[in-house]
Amino acid sequence: MTLKVSDIGEKELVRYIISNSKDITPDDTAITNFNDTNLISTCDMLIQSRHFPKNMTYFDMGFKAVTVNVSDLAAMGAEPLGFLLAIAIPKDLRLDDFKEIIDGVLKACDYYSIPLIGGDTNEASEIIINGTALGLSDSPLMKDTYHKGDLIAVTGDIGLAALGFELDTWDNVYVKHALRPEAKIKEGLILKDYATSATDITDGLASELYEIKKDDYGFMIYEEMLNVSDEYKQLADKLGLDYLDLILHVGEDFELLFTISRENLEKLPIDCIVIGEVNDSDVIELTLENGFVERIKNEGYEHYVSE
Amino acid sequence: MTLKVSDIGEKELVRYIISNSKDITPDDTAITNFNDTNLISTCDMLIQSRHFPKNMTYFDMGFKAVTVNVSDLAAMGAEPLGFLLAIAIPKDLRLDDFKEIIDGVLKACDYYSIPLIGGDTNEASEIIINGTALGLSDSPLMKDTYHKGDLIAVTGDIGLAALGFELDTWDNVYVKHALRPEAKIKEGLILKDYATSATDITDGLASELYEIKKDDYGFMIYEEMLNVSDEYKQLADKLGLDYLDLILHVGEDFELLFTISRENLEKLPIDCIVIGEVNDSDVIELTLENGFVERIKNEGYEHYVSE
Repeated sequence: MTLKVSDIGEKELVRYIISNSKDITPDDTAITNFNDTNLISTCDMLIQSRHFPKNMTYFDMGFKAVTVNVSDLAAMGAEPLGFLLAIAIPKDLRLDDFKEIIDGVLKACDYYSIPLIGGDTNEASEIIINGTALGLSDSPLMKDTYHKGDLIAVTGDIGLAALGFELDTWDNVYVKHALRPEAKIKEGLILKDYATSATDITDGLASELYEIKKDDYGFMIYEEMLNVSDEYKQLADKLGLDYLDLILHVGEDFELLFTISRENLEKLPIDCIVIGEVNDSDVIELTLENGFVERIKNEGYEHYVSE
Repeated sequence: MTLKVSDIGEKELVRYIISNSKDITPDDTAITNFNDTNLISTCDMLIQSRHFPKNMTYFDMGFKAVTVNVSDLAAMGAEPLGFLLAIAIPKDLRLDDFKEIIDGVLKACDYYSIPLIGGDTNEASEIIINGTALGLSDSPLMKDTYHKGDLIAVTGDIGLAALGFELDTWDNVYVKHALRPEAKIKEGLILKDYATSATDITDGLASELYEIKKDDYGFMIYEEMLNVSDEYKQLADKLGLDYLDLILHVGEDFELLFTISRENLEKLPIDCIVIGEVNDSDVIELTLENGFVERIKNEGYEHYVSE
């Protein structure tokens, strides 16, 4: 039987690439040292049928293409340097819709103070956008350089986009986060001087925690510190969804997940939400509101019906 | 009537992007100045149904994805710094075929001495590869900085790939150039110190000449200096194709097209083929072997039947 890539899964494909290349840093971005600084570089490809919800405007597609890449710069605490835009579009796309995508890209580049410096245009059967974000950092913030006893925090509420993807109604904070997520580039630049590690939340808090976990280290997250609003729980319940699954296993938050010493937390000049701590348990766990402790599973979203 | 992008054409789409962005250098790559050097960055997206001939191996797809991007570095005379690979594949792609693509990428990165430093994997309905090539140059070689009286030259024979795309037979120089083109990165680094301008030939010599033309400048190309072999003419003729169309209007050569003073040509330590000169005619012309002079048209390939 011939093995297909779907039999193996993305992680194994990535592993094949990394194991055959000695120059890949397994962090949020590439880090290339030269002169007395580091070039920070990253790319992410967005494919219309997979990354753009049906109710997303063309403007928001362009904006998001920049956001997902700048978010990786933010996770390194890097200063933005430039953005390259490669875009493939169907030939029957309306010209106005194309211009809207570009306007979204330009708006985002302006918003994140990252100049659009180049790119490529192409034709494809659907809209495909690859962004490359370039930044500079003399001391990039890695994702696994935390210490036991560090607090775990996020730059803002998580799980909002996950709920937003499930809603039909418009004009609420959840749908806004789903359709117009924002990279935390300013926060990243500040965290660089306070945090011990950072990454951005794209595939869900659970996925990122497993991504950054080292042997002999563990994480304890506290549900009550996640500050899940009653409204969130009710909306999830009405949809027949488990709110913790939404918060942990979907992603698209683009908040920064970081670790910080208690001492530095007191000095940190930005708002954040402390959600747990780093320990030596070697497992990743959640203390529920009722006090029970359960293992956080390393998986993507599953559409649970709430009990 | 609603305008579609196909009504406008790629050049106008690019113009919309450039006119709304003050940071784009209209040359082969982006140029970002910092410290006492310049970051050279470029990206190119290859789409299976459009860029990979049916008889291309998966290995050659990966190799080409690096080549097309490194070629832009070569055109600037830049030193390679790093390569980012974003690849989307169908989920039913055989694992071995995926590995072949990656092997092609890694082989090319090694061949061009450009480390693979990062990237992204995705799923799409066909193979889509976006490469980003990063380089450094303290004095990038631009594409329109030629002088009247400069000679025009290329780093190697052109038109070979164009003929190769039309052939069914294997194992000949034409098909080799079509399936495994190579970027002239070493030549670019040398030309940096001798040439007055350079670009790489991707869309055909005619297209590139129009791309680099400035007001009040003209180019005269001499057919006899193109050194078209009898074999080439015969093969084209047998296929009912016009050999000059193949040479001028198809591309995929990835040779460097450059301008150079007569004085520097004598000192140039690499082989090249002088094909014409820069003048003040304000037009782009070809002197045929029979002595007649005709305007070179600014167009892509048209499948002519030879007379």
